[in-house]
Amino acid sequence: MGVAASPGELLVTVDHVIEGRHVREGELAELIGRKAVARSVSDIAAMAGRPIWGLATAALNGAVSQERADALFDAMSRWARHWGCPLVGGDISATSGPSVFTVTVAGVPHVKRGAVLRSGARVGDGVYVTGRLGGSLESGRHLTFEPRVAEAAWLADVLGDDLHAMIDLSDGLGRDAARVGRASGVRLVVESARLPRHEGIVDWRRAMGDGEDYELCFTASGPGSAAEKVLSAGEIDATGTIVTRVGRVVAVGEGLAAGCVVIDERGHEVEAGEMGWEHA
Amino acid sequence: MGVAASPGELLVTVDHVIEGRHVREGELAELIGRKAVARSVSDIAAMAGRPIWGLATAALNGAVSQERADALFDAMSRWARHWGCPLVGGDISATSGPSVFTVTVAGVPHVKRGAVLRSGARVGDGVYVTGRLGGSLESGRHLTFEPRVAEAAWLADVLGDDLHAMIDLSDGLGRDAARVGRASGVRLVVESARLPRHEGIVDWRRAMGDGEDYELCFTASGPGSAAEKVLSAGEIDATGTIVTRVGRVVAVGEGLAAGCVVIDERGHEVEAGEMGWEHA
Repeated sequence: MGVAASPGELLVTVDHVIEGRHVREGELAELIGRKAVARSVSDIAAMAGRPIWGLATAALNGAVSQERADALFDAMSRWARHWGCPLVGGDISATSGPSVFTVTVAGVPHVKRGAVLRSGARVGDGVYVTGRLGGSLESGRHLTFEPRVAEAAWLADVLGDDLHAMIDLSDGLGRDAARVGRASGVRLVVESARLPRHEGIVDWRRAMGDGEDYELCFTASGPGSAAEKVLSAGEIDATGTIVTRVGRVVAVGEGLAAGCVVIDERGHEVEAGEMGWEHA
Repeated sequence: MGVAASPGELLVTVDHVIEGRHVREGELAELIGRKAVARSVSDIAAMAGRPIWGLATAALNGAVSQERADALFDAMSRWARHWGCPLVGGDISATSGPSVFTVTVAGVPHVKRGAVLRSGARVGDGVYVTGRLGGSLESGRHLTFEPRVAEAAWLADVLGDDLHAMIDLSDGLGRDAARVGRASGVRLVVESARLPRHEGIVDWRRAMGDGEDYELCFTASGPGSAAEKVLSAGEIDATGTIVTRVGRVVAVGEGLAAGCVVIDERGHEVEAGEMGWEHA
């Protein structure tokens, strides 16, 4: 999750990584540290922010060696510097349970566009995603994904006020797009046939529901707009990351609640809000 | 711990509270939430800062009921508002181990004095503590202490640049004063006979070592200074909290490392740096 806090227009976010839950027990310290930082950096990217500093905490299981503890903090520290948000502090403690990490990242909003929130989607917008979806956990991509900071900055640069709402995909496009819909009081309609899937992901339901893709889902001005023309190139100039229009934003109405639906292969509407897995 | 982060002169700090370690297992949600916030507010007070916002995380054991989870977040939220740092976000997760809480608090430095760090102690300074020490865990004071925000602000107001270094006492005066000594490259000499002890605390070693007092220890200009005169009143005007000079700052030299020593009842010097308990 990410929230925009007021003082000095700072963006701040905090996320957990728990051993045995978000990462395998005994996973490489390098990959745990990377993921712990990357998840929070992704939250800042979702607001089109630029990460500037971080704080890290670790409640380490008593069986964790000093060497591994050092390696974990070293990894968090290096990756935080890598993404521009050096750790300015933190806390370490001991627990009898699984090791629990939190990383807080602060960022500054895009200079011209300001913070992009999930509540800005408008009727008529196109719905877009960066990259490809599905299979993140089994492929190991959840450990090595690149937070979409540069992509988000480019979108805010180029689309400006035509970029209306954005979120990063941690719980799956179904759940996360539904959050955008509810926060904006609109309905996102996603076409299953348009979903960009990773190799080996045959069923579109997995692209909607697998979670941990950490791609961006955003809405931008629709047909006839400058935004639509720019995005029709299918690629983000700054990085070459693909961008795909997967649907559109419609008004809520009789029997049509705010949220997200998918049009399946037979043309039927399926509620998408429960499709993502409930990771915690 | 507390660190001063650079952007916009913001102070930020984060601390753990782990059930079964920093609080009894099954402790009242109200008291867990209070302590989780109070520890971080105390870190901001130690820098003479004013808390402005907070973030809270909870990795809750699977057996925690929804009702208790709500009560925990409600308590953190209320106490954060109470101390001027409303929660602007957070994260909740699930763990198979003991519940782990972290609270991040951001603050702004004192307008005139700026952030007071532990590294500013000077040779010739007096060493002071607020309140009384010892027996915090057994008395339950570790759950109900009042972070010394108002006292620290008053000290910065009144002493200004004569207030040189400050820390809050979480690990015991011995360990925490030694941190000030090491950070400042000086030696704090504490006189055991001067230590202000809570009722029932007979042995001065407990006043040095018990921990979790969350009082302030600070150093300020010594003999002949305006600071010394103000502080000789023995009380902080703003709140009536007592303030006691417990020692002085001397230079390091041959065989005299930076840190903290206590002069015991027989006039012998005792290293104080290992006297506090190692809470994590």
